[in-house]
Amino acid sequence: MRSHRCGEVNESLLGEEVQLCGWVHRRRDHGGVIFVDLRDREGLVQVVFDPDYQASFKLAETVRSEYVIRVVGKVRSRPEGTENPNLKSGKVEVLASSLEILNRSETPPFPIESDIEVNEEMRLRYRYIDLRRPVMQQRMRMRRDITRFLRNFLDHHGFYEIETPFLTKATPEGARDYLVPSRTHPHSFFALPQSPQLYKQLLMISGMDRYYQVVRCFRDEDLRADRQPEFTQLDIETSFMNEDQIMSLAEAMIRDLFREVLNEALPDPFPRITYAEAMRRYASDKPDLRIPLELVDIADLMAGVEFKVFAGPAADPEGRVVALKVPGGCDISRKDIDDLTRFVGIYGAKGLAYVKVNDLGAGLEGLQSPILKFMPEATIRGILERTEAQSGDLIFFGADKARVVNESMGALRVKLGQDRGLVEPGWRPLWVTDFPMFEWDEKSGRWMALHHPFTAPNCSEEELKRSPGTALSRAYDMVLNGTEIGGGSVRIHRTEMQQTVFGLLGIGEEEARQKFGFLLNALRYGCPPHGGLAFGLDRLVMLMSGASSIREVMAFPKTQSAWCPLIDAPAQVNDAQLHELGIRLRKNPATEGGSTPAA
Amino acid sequence: MRSHRCGEVNESLLGEEVQLCGWVHRRRDHGGVIFVDLRDREGLVQVVFDPDYQASFKLAETVRSEYVIRVVGKVRSRPEGTENPNLKSGKVEVLASSLEILNRSETPPFPIESDIEVNEEMRLRYRYIDLRRPVMQQRMRMRRDITRFLRNFLDHHGFYEIETPFLTKATPEGARDYLVPSRTHPHSFFALPQSPQLYKQLLMISGMDRYYQVVRCFRDEDLRADRQPEFTQLDIETSFMNEDQIMSLAEAMIRDLFREVLNEALPDPFPRITYAEAMRRYASDKPDLRIPLELVDIADLMAGVEFKVFAGPAADPEGRVVALKVPGGCDISRKDIDDLTRFVGIYGAKGLAYVKVNDLGAGLEGLQSPILKFMPEATIRGILERTEAQSGDLIFFGADKARVVNESMGALRVKLGQDRGLVEPGWRPLWVTDFPMFEWDEKSGRWMALHHPFTAPNCSEEELKRSPGTALSRAYDMVLNGTEIGGGSVRIHRTEMQQTVFGLLGIGEEEARQKFGFLLNALRYGCPPHGGLAFGLDRLVMLMSGASSIREVMAFPKTQSAWCPLIDAPAQVNDAQLHELGIRLRKNPATEGGSTPAA
Repeated sequence: MRSHRCGEVNESLLGEEVQLCGWVHRRRDHGGVIFVDLRDREGLVQVVFDPDYQASFKLAETVRSEYVIRVVGKVRSRPEGTENPNLKSGKVEVLASSLEILNRSETPPFPIESDIEVNEEMRLRYRYIDLRRPVMQQRMRMRRDITRFLRNFLDHHGFYEIETPFLTKATPEGARDYLVPSRTHPHSFFALPQSPQLYKQLLMISGMDRYYQVVRCFRDEDLRADRQPEFTQLDIETSFMNEDQIMSLAEAMIRDLFREVLNEALPDPFPRITYAEAMRRYASDKPDLRIPLELVDIADLMAGVEFKVFAGPAADPEGRVVALKVPGGCDISRKDIDDLTRFVGIYGAKGLAYVKVNDLGAGLEGLQSPILKFMPEATIRGILERTEAQSGDLIFFGADKARVVNESMGALRVKLGQDRGLVEPGWRPLWVTDFPMFEWDEKSGRWMALHHPFTAPNCSEEELKRSPGTALSRAYDMVLNGTEIGGGSVRIHRTEMQQTVFGLLGIGEEEARQKFGFLLNALRYGCPPHGGLAFGLDRLVMLMSGASSIREVMAFPKTQSAWCPLIDAPAQVNDAQLHELGIRLRKNPATEGGSTPAA
Repeated sequence: MRSHRCGEVNESLLGEEVQLCGWVHRRRDHGGVIFVDLRDREGLVQVVFDPDYQASFKLAETVRSEYVIRVVGKVRSRPEGTENPNLKSGKVEVLASSLEILNRSETPPFPIESDIEVNEEMRLRYRYIDLRRPVMQQRMRMRRDITRFLRNFLDHHGFYEIETPFLTKATPEGARDYLVPSRTHPHSFFALPQSPQLYKQLLMISGMDRYYQVVRCFRDEDLRADRQPEFTQLDIETSFMNEDQIMSLAEAMIRDLFREVLNEALPDPFPRITYAEAMRRYASDKPDLRIPLELVDIADLMAGVEFKVFAGPAADPEGRVVALKVPGGCDISRKDIDDLTRFVGIYGAKGLAYVKVNDLGAGLEGLQSPILKFMPEATIRGILERTEAQSGDLIFFGADKARVVNESMGALRVKLGQDRGLVEPGWRPLWVTDFPMFEWDEKSGRWMALHHPFTAPNCSEEELKRSPGTALSRAYDMVLNGTEIGGGSVRIHRTEMQQTVFGLLGIGEEEARQKFGFLLNALRYGCPPHGGLAFGLDRLVMLMSGASSIREVMAFPKTQSAWCPLIDAPAQVNDAQLHELGIRLRKNPATEGGSTPAA
């Protein structure tokens, strides 16, 4: 039906006849002729209808925006002065000799332009129109380019793409499973996978050597900030490689990806910092290195002060006291400081002390702060020295339980970086390593796995049992500009170690057998040393395309309340279907005792 | 940890030191040295432990089958006469200087050999061991090769791989949906897609131009012969191409695939036959062209006979009377004919008449048949002529409602072809086209779509309404050696036609709006002409790898009762989870009135 795509018509085709299909982007009648900007995936081309071709001209008078048409015509140069340097096809136009209307269109609910002001629900309801906008077409294309590059890289390195099941078994992991009732096995349920973690380990035990998969994963979570009930993971696992080798390969892949798709050079190698160092300097396990602000520990300096706000946490083994210097921060107003105090309050901080260093040379006189009177001069001097403060700087303080200080001061660091325009341009990837194996959960009174229960510790079983709270794991996260884009670990490959870890996590022998019996069994039959990682593909595409949300890089995302306005899903189903599945709807708690809601 | 894979060690490495990791396939102690066949994904290599390297030798005495070990050693030629021509590495061996046991193994439940006699449930329960068998490794590799080739082909032809949702909406299609209760929207359900059909059409309306996806699909069917609850489809859609162009592209892809992966040449172009011709000659819409048997219609010849078994169907507009000649079939015994009669009985045939042509020259005397006496000589002559029977041939007859004749005689044709070794070697693809739009469903008393309700007819709306029973569609199926491997159609791209088809299918306006409102809406906003098709990837890989079932080419299939013996899914879940989802288990009909089954 066509010889070229619209966006591909250019001066190399001058004088040739082309056949084009596409959408009417704009129609203008001017000087007795009709101009149509014809659009397809590749871009726009200007088509001219001249009264000399009377039939086409008459028909062209009826076309409206978003009509789908087929045009035959000759490529010619645009008259001098009418060229459009913003278009690939901007030097030429097509003089139509024939026109066919393939389909009509009602007036679309919003214009097909990259920049529009339309609420997101409307865009999702008419996603098929939204996706016609050039910016969305570019994002889908970039997603395609990225996925293809990653596959080719892994193919080239001997990884097999192997498909794993979606109808699997509920797991006791943190996030909640989507359940799927089975018709064949009444009162039993499949679960949609949160990740193919155990299957990929089984593939290593199967001798598949190197595996990857671009795979959908599912989490029935309360939908925070930028989560989707289904998301895509690049899932990778390999046998016979240690963490250094896995990290090297993974960062080479990401480095090559950025060079290939964005023409951007990432550092070689990526910097690596330990979890402990990341928390110490950035109060975050996914630090944004583009922000040149760092925390400085000052508990030792504060230990002796009378002021309880500082002295308490400084003496508490679970406490933390830090300073955050903002260069040139003396210009931060009282009102702004009040706002920032409220901001850190969201994270549980009870206040936000500060010192303005108006004039370093003027001694204590040059400082301005409500808390100066509580601190001995030596402490103040120590803080100024350790933060290397200069005249004009401001120093914020955080003092509380370490968890509160890390969350509030980590967030404050990022906010100050963004608000004050301190975020340096470019890409700043890094590895975070040496995570703790476990963290203590106050609520349940037991150890929880910081990654997942299959992560190998970097110590012996005996050491792990002796001191689970200080044991480190062989896990690693890849962080890019403050976002965790990938993470993984070397896995446990011996039954005994796996049982020990289950035990420390409070998973009893019976529960372990019931839920992970197949894994414990499999580890007995020659499991190779193995490890891997997974990348969040949606987030990676979002970052690389400069989009503001993962919803912008998915063709048909759900809203933040996990609803699809386009097809209106989820939806009610009829009772016969539920009957067949052996389930019924629970009475609505609000109308308990009343009738069951209509299905 | 290693310098090469085991199967890659060959004479090009003579004299070099290699580091290998793998599984102990076999250990033999012979002549004071220990031989270990070390195995990985790429194959086997022989490792020799000599008492000269005492530490390694002592350790090697402890290794058992399926231990995972790491070996360092020097590649040397095998002594003359001990070479193994069946191995890629068969001319060399590795003299180990160092050995490390990476993991031990219990004795596996069955041997790691391609040919084993183990029931399938056992194989699936220990799938991680089953997948170590060379034949399974080859299948996974071929699946990888096939998938990769298809992706590259489509990428090269301008198709974008675009991901579509898995949490979607229940559809009123033939097979049953898997439902997924929503926690966020109580009493509402997602459905897992049976195919991304509507999403791919929406992508065409979005101007994506060409789409494909290697995508999981789900069908909660009673599991017949060789179905799985989840299966993989290569799903393709394009705008601005007609059925000829789509078929040409698709067959070029399959042709290139076979050349590349199997080094097999498929015909160019593939033969195309209409649905009517396929039913006439093969009584099947997926004929196996390797079987050189064809049906011959003889209703006209039988119309006049007194024998009601033939005369009835011959006179019935819904009847069919056929002959099936088996060359050299005179050797089929009475007992075999009885068996075949029972066989066609499965398909509803009430008998299986036959004529043996013992000696064509001897006239009626040369024929042998219980039915001769019921037929006039002219009829018999007519049949012999039309079937071009020769001495030694046997002719079977089918006479009944066309549906019964087609199912029974179509199956008989295939069975005879297989039992009598008539199946010609090689690959015989074809296209079946010109399917009826609808078939009449006796049970529900209404028209059903032969493909799906979005398939375009090859006639106008007016003609379609006037005569839905004879209207043909723009659908096409690709058939290979008797298996449908792909199918698709040009789709309806105008609202009015889509409404007409819904109407003929008895989908009322309200139901259409509720279930397909988004599609009817989308067709109003400039839908391009489009069409596509989908390939069953599992079946394609099964055929190409020579496997007997799609379960053999999936890493972790379910059993035929949709159960996974490996992880034991589906499984019961606790009541708290169900409570959160707003559902409860229905009382078991068998214990109605009693207590609900424990969850």
